Amino acid sequence: MSAPRIAIAPATTDELQAAVRAGGGEPVDDATDADGLVWVNPRDPQGLGDLLKASRATWVQLPFAGIEAFIAAGVVDPARTWTCTKGVYGPACAEHALALMLAAARRLHEHIKASSWRQGGFGSPERRLDGTTALVIGTGGIGKAFVPMARPLGIRIVGLNRSGTPLEGADRTVKADRLHDEIGDADWVVIAAASTPETRHMIDARALEHMRDTAWIVNVARGELMDTDALVAALEARSIGGAALDVTDPEPLPDGHPLWTLDNVIITPHVANTWDMAVPELVGIVERNVAHFAAGDGLEGLVDPAAGY
Amino acid sequence: MSAPRIAIAPATTDELQAAVRAGGGEPVDDATDADGLVWVNPRDPQGLGDLLKASRATWVQLPFAGIEAFIAAGVVDPARTWTCTKGVYGPACAEHALALMLAAARRLHEHIKASSWRQGGFGSPERRLDGTTALVIGTGGIGKAFVPMARPLGIRIVGLNRSGTPLEGADRTVKADRLHDEIGDADWVVIAAASTPETRHMIDARALEHMRDTAWIVNVARGELMDTDALVAALEARSIGGAALDVTDPEPLPDGHPLWTLDNVIITPHVANTWDMAVPELVGIVERNVAHFAAGDGLEGLVDPAAGY
Repeated sequence: MSAPRIAIAPATTDELQAAVRAGGGEPVDDATDADGLVWVNPRDPQGLGDLLKASRATWVQLPFAGIEAFIAAGVVDPARTWTCTKGVYGPACAEHALALMLAAARRLHEHIKASSWRQGGFGSPERRLDGTTALVIGTGGIGKAFVPMARPLGIRIVGLNRSGTPLEGADRTVKADRLHDEIGDADWVVIAAASTPETRHMIDARALEHMRDTAWIVNVARGELMDTDALVAALEARSIGGAALDVTDPEPLPDGHPLWTLDNVIITPHVANTWDMAVPELVGIVERNVAHFAAGDGLEGLVDPAAGY
Repeated sequence: MSAPRIAIAPATTDELQAAVRAGGGEPVDDATDADGLVWVNPRDPQGLGDLLKASRATWVQLPFAGIEAFIAAGVVDPARTWTCTKGVYGPACAEHALALMLAAARRLHEHIKASSWRQGGFGSPERRLDGTTALVIGTGGIGKAFVPMARPLGIRIVGLNRSGTPLEGADRTVKADRLHDEIGDADWVVIAAASTPETRHMIDARALEHMRDTAWIVNVARGELMDTDALVAALEARSIGGAALDVTDPEPLPDGHPLWTLDNVIITPHVANTWDMAVPELVGIVERNVAHFAAGDGLEGLVDPAAGY
């Protein structure tokens, strides 16, 4: 086809317009007669729905991987082709997961708050990652990126996904129905799955009961995958080692929530993949997908509206 | 020779006695007529000196890598063969360096102290390690172990040592006299060198002046390699990004020292390689060196008394 007309909404940037041009597309202001649409506001599914009512765009690019709010709002209609950035931000999130694991292992949540030297010695609580086992829940972009970062540190990796399809480089991969059997062998439970009705509260009181009392939960995916009340109970009872959370439910985590004061918790405010980290990756996928779209080729990051991600 | 007689002093443990036996040696209580001596107290060079006056041991194994206090006390006489654990603890210390770098990059020193959600967005300060450059000062056990852990995270590595002998896997290795030329290109200055008269205050006011105002110093070696007063001045002036220190000078860091309250500092109390982490490695090298000693072969971790490490 001739250069596809691509609208960027609700607001455009020079970088994204340049990416559209570099991919062989023509940036246009009006979404009504655009062939494709890049929607850049992750918090406004309704705005996208309104825009699409009057648009003949056959392809919509979403600038993030966790699109559950857009699925829930009913805007992801299967009559169009939908792409998101699934996989693209995996390395940034995997790096954050590793940062949280190392912080927990090296007790940085204690040392960073200290204002006095605590002499180490036999029995001091710091641990190495070498020789520990991580159960990686979800083997998409984050899980795939995690493996080559974690293995050189001597971490054994067990992947877990719906089908049991092997996670490349993992020691083993198991099906999701094995969660309760596998979680008790893990030193680290790394949550890296999409948020769907099926995965909601996957880590609940029963799953937590199977964990070792030294094991940490690390969540760089979505807060809704965990039952927060059950997590708080386990942390208070010290039936698990701790929790390092970049995402929470509710999110933002309200002031005064018990997770803020527990001493076996590390919280980061959803910064595993910041906007500044994301922009270069987003620009790249927009350029590549515009080029694929112009050539009539398959697109990267295709959404399965039925599966919800 | 027949089974060498090996004394473990000033106190022995079942694990070390088993290691001596596994290496083909005979553990003995009296150091006087021992062939070899394993000295396990890192803080008592004088006690070792006193013991050696009456001992015919031709080989002494020290259980740590930083032996500068024993060199300074004059007990490391060249008439005997001396070994330490140089290199053996490298992976534990390299893992700690990586933990400190990830903590700084992901601003855990801010997040861990927070009790309220700070919404991320454009301009939030978290950074990835991918694409950053680490200048690794010292290419012994820590530096060698650091490379394969750091490279999968996309970190460029420049090694620095006395001779310029290439650090395997590094992008480049430079001689120590290039420090001031190279330090300004680094996002991370990782101190991993032995403490000797030559390396004392290697990072001084002039070296710090060449650093980027976003770059962090990470020290997992010895506090004496840095001029602490110059470091505090640079941190207060924000002419460098920050400092993550597992070792300090003085050490222990006294209560009320300015390093405790600066917001661009992370301190851990010399726990990169704790006793609990070290024991399995120490047991291993004792067993191997007893076997080498019994066979008349070369020993691991040979000390050069003239070089001081």
